[in-house]
Amino acid sequence: MDSTFLEILGLIAGAITSMGYLPQLYKGYKTKKLIDISYYMPGVLAIGMTLWLLYGIFLKAFAVIVANAFGISFSIVLIIMKKIYS
Amino acid sequence: MDSTFLEILGLIAGAITSMGYLPQLYKGYKTKKLIDISYYMPGVLAIGMTLWLLYGIFLKAFAVIVANAFGISFSIVLIIMKKIYS
Repeated sequence: MDSTFLEILGLIAGAITSMGYLPQLYKGYKTKKLIDISYYMPGVLAIGMTLWLLYGIFLKAFAVIVANAFGISFSIVLIIMKKIYS
Repeated sequence: MDSTFLEILGLIAGAITSMGYLPQLYKGYKTKKLIDISYYMPGVLAIGMTLWLLYGIFLKAFAVIVANAFGISFSIVLIIMKKIYS
């Protein structure tokens, strides 16, 4: 398997999963309501993505590193937003 | 870097991120309310995780494959639950 193709696939996959939180953050920002969101979801995901980040660093997999760095940041933003709006 | 250590790290990371949705599914099931959840979040994440799954298959990274297979399944369950409860 061509490693450039793989790196591009990983980057696209990472970009899309990183953006997954954005519509949720936008919806929360518009409605100012995140009652139905469980704190544990972004909490557990942030812990897991921190381990993925380490995995990416050890594997030197740039796509994995970037995707999880964004994912962790957005998880923290979601937790803070829920805290503010509740 | 020891590849066994890496594989274990990936499996733990995958297990934790796979479980990230579970508290959200549980909360949704208990309250029967998922109004504040954006359909786009699990939707976009499922698309991104499908690409991660392909990435994992090409890389033969077992942890990546398993984590994303669970993630995709839970995303679909969350979308169906929101549909049912709305």
